[in-house]
Amino acid sequence: MAKNLTSRAEDYSKWYNDLVIKADLAENSGVRGCMVIKPYGFAIWEKMQAELDRMFKETGHQNAYFPLFIPKSYFSKEASHVDGFAKECAVVTHYRLKNAEDGSGIEVDPEAKLEEELIVRPTSETIIWDTYRKWVQSYRDLPILVNQWANVVRWEMRTRLFLRTAEFLWQEGHTAHATEQEAINEAELILNVYANFVENYMAIPVIKGLKTESERFAGALETYCIEALMQDGKALQAGTSHFLGQNFAKAFDVKFTDREGKLDYVWATSWGVSTRLMGALVMTHSDDNGLVLPPNLAPDQVVIVPIYRNEEQLAAASEVAERLTQELRSHGIRVKFDNRDTHKPGWKFNEYELKGVPVRIAIGPKDVENGTVEIARRDTLTKELVKTEEATETIIDLMKQIQENMFTKADAFRNEKTTSVESYDEFKQVLEEKGGFISAHWDGTEATEDRIKKETKATIRCIPLDGDKTPGKCMVTGQPSERRVLFAKAY
Amino acid sequence: MAKNLTSRAEDYSKWYNDLVIKADLAENSGVRGCMVIKPYGFAIWEKMQAELDRMFKETGHQNAYFPLFIPKSYFSKEASHVDGFAKECAVVTHYRLKNAEDGSGIEVDPEAKLEEELIVRPTSETIIWDTYRKWVQSYRDLPILVNQWANVVRWEMRTRLFLRTAEFLWQEGHTAHATEQEAINEAELILNVYANFVENYMAIPVIKGLKTESERFAGALETYCIEALMQDGKALQAGTSHFLGQNFAKAFDVKFTDREGKLDYVWATSWGVSTRLMGALVMTHSDDNGLVLPPNLAPDQVVIVPIYRNEEQLAAASEVAERLTQELRSHGIRVKFDNRDTHKPGWKFNEYELKGVPVRIAIGPKDVENGTVEIARRDTLTKELVKTEEATETIIDLMKQIQENMFTKADAFRNEKTTSVESYDEFKQVLEEKGGFISAHWDGTEATEDRIKKETKATIRCIPLDGDKTPGKCMVTGQPSERRVLFAKAY
Repeated sequence: MAKNLTSRAEDYSKWYNDLVIKADLAENSGVRGCMVIKPYGFAIWEKMQAELDRMFKETGHQNAYFPLFIPKSYFSKEASHVDGFAKECAVVTHYRLKNAEDGSGIEVDPEAKLEEELIVRPTSETIIWDTYRKWVQSYRDLPILVNQWANVVRWEMRTRLFLRTAEFLWQEGHTAHATEQEAINEAELILNVYANFVENYMAIPVIKGLKTESERFAGALETYCIEALMQDGKALQAGTSHFLGQNFAKAFDVKFTDREGKLDYVWATSWGVSTRLMGALVMTHSDDNGLVLPPNLAPDQVVIVPIYRNEEQLAAASEVAERLTQELRSHGIRVKFDNRDTHKPGWKFNEYELKGVPVRIAIGPKDVENGTVEIARRDTLTKELVKTEEATETIIDLMKQIQENMFTKADAFRNEKTTSVESYDEFKQVLEEKGGFISAHWDGTEATEDRIKKETKATIRCIPLDGDKTPGKCMVTGQPSERRVLFAKAY
Repeated sequence: MAKNLTSRAEDYSKWYNDLVIKADLAENSGVRGCMVIKPYGFAIWEKMQAELDRMFKETGHQNAYFPLFIPKSYFSKEASHVDGFAKECAVVTHYRLKNAEDGSGIEVDPEAKLEEELIVRPTSETIIWDTYRKWVQSYRDLPILVNQWANVVRWEMRTRLFLRTAEFLWQEGHTAHATEQEAINEAELILNVYANFVENYMAIPVIKGLKTESERFAGALETYCIEALMQDGKALQAGTSHFLGQNFAKAFDVKFTDREGKLDYVWATSWGVSTRLMGALVMTHSDDNGLVLPPNLAPDQVVIVPIYRNEEQLAAASEVAERLTQELRSHGIRVKFDNRDTHKPGWKFNEYELKGVPVRIAIGPKDVENGTVEIARRDTLTKELVKTEEATETIIDLMKQIQENMFTKADAFRNEKTTSVESYDEFKQVLEEKGGFISAHWDGTEATEDRIKKETKATIRCIPLDGDKTPGKCMVTGQPSERRVLFAKAY
């Protein structure tokens, strides 16, 4: 471990933090709780954005942009919403600085106090529904299928790069519908878009489910979620899609005339995924050598490193490398040919391992002589010699193989770490010794849910949409349980 | 003018505002000075972003993301910078809300006051250079070629949709270099990228030039700009690229070891364009009927409207329309087939004229019978009948023609509205009667510049990089002038 990464076994939390920083994904900034997303990390996020954005558009959504600031009074209009967010709001109170009279620097100008304070958006339901009131009169104006890519701020006390930061980047969809069923369908459609993206691009298996009442989004009637399992056995909520009923329409007086000429409130959904997904990506696949990126999201899918002792050898290796680069690019594969003379091959191998590039190709003098190249896989850390003329085909195939293998591996891990338990004792034992998802019966009450949380720190991650729906008895109270739900300790 | 647009002649300013709102580009929000960018407006901005982003990447730049908030103390570190922005800063002072004790709603929690106030970024030089200090040790770490797409806030007292808003969207590039010359080259490279983009995608001719000292960016040694002329004869600054010297490196102590092992401060540039360009796009090309969009940025380049009295006629027109849609799409043309039965053809014609779709195709029963389609150009408002089998070729050709024609028209207007004057009287007369750019001699002093500004409201838009460089005498003071500079009233 030349990279001085802490190992996962030693300290999982430190391993994660080290890796995010050393692999140039992100770092802490001088502003408490706010991170800097570095170019390499941002390039991955851009790939994620591009795929999600395509999926949203293919399902009929359009992007728009709403204000960063929300007047305090808007916030109060939906009661449970303000309860959910009031404790973590950044508040703008003034609009000007001035030179301090004592010459000590600049200070906030007390005369430039806002009449009404502005909240930096922690989420945009309120400002958006205030806008939708102007957009909707009749059923002809519906549905509104709008998404925005934006930064939001939630003042977290304990922050961790990507997983929990005061400012984060996300997309938030906000849709308006003429009927309850249409809004529910929308919330479910998006849940499937999220699951599809996370499984097929991030190579992370997810459980689709519903949140319990106490874990719902502030203002939602139903929160759909996808839950993933990290390598330390803790769960991570990867995305949520909310059916908001008519709550926000009522709070902001958004009514429409239906086909029969009747006036009714509009039905709503909202849904989002954030840069938190970057944390999930790192924690699901990476190892003690560094990142492991799925080909579908890797900024560089292939890196070619020439190995040489003199100019002649470099020229020979470069000729092969450049031909191969062109061929691969013509197949849409993202290739980097690293012929920098400032760094040795060993250093480069290390670097690209750390950065999780799926495939590394080395071309040395012997390879040139024998008409071969050495192909190394990041996911399995295996190497093979391949004839140069077969390299392109091999790599096209590897892109698919690696993507699939990463998913399969994560899926096997998740399945192995999912346990059905029959009693609360067994529950506590599994939670302590094995971790992971625990499938158990629960009586459906908040009291029991709270007790389990207090006693074990495990929460109900979701009521799975699929899976075992046999009724049973609550593991804690013995009361009737409609079906098993999924518990875990979570990020 | 069924759209109830104010005409340009009647009230140019009102025409602009009406158009932005009625064409669904943007609207005012409930937050003072902050706009909502509506889906149609945002779709145009996304096209602009995509092209610019591609150009930045092709010239070696990467994207990253830096915090929204800037600690007040960072701000003070570069003296002229803080002077430039202090008066228009949104300031975050608290991080929590709470229920008012008298039950009157929510209020800012006085106990959650920040130790140091945070400024919502008006631009990010200070937070970024604080970060670069950690990224740079040696010449090997340079150059840093980073861009970010972000929202920024400048508390403007008088706002106008797109042109001047408290919050706006932009990109800001921030680069770090080992030598002065390299940084100057970078600032000039980006100026050319901007000019290329604005001329070839937005179809707006620009003058490339340098700002005078008093018009420079707060903290820059040199500000390069591109200046465009709007239809009312006022200039609009479309983009700026700043050579910052070592100012920010000194303020944030960013040093590097050069190839000779000597320690020196890093050289910097920054550069940006914003959603203000949307205003320029509207004001350069649109007419009293609505928007006129250049094909290179139009979300829909072609719209097809069927004309029919019965189902049979609709089916026949649809068959032609769908075939044509597919053909055009296979050539990469963005086509919308509007077969909604909720709106009449006349309403649709009006709507797409208002929204500036470059080409409209109408297919009626006679067209089906004769094997023709009617093709209408938005830029010239002309129509022609074309044989259906020639339609695709005609439209491919029209995309280029319309793009070129829009540029040529704007260029002719700009040239016609650019006047060389010899005396201050002539200057004032031209400014009053004709407007536009005025090329005149100036003695190079801030005093004269100020006097002209106070007396006429015209400012020096730039010292053009190209054009007449003959020396002369200042039109105001008679003092020697190195060369003519460009004046105008400006947005």
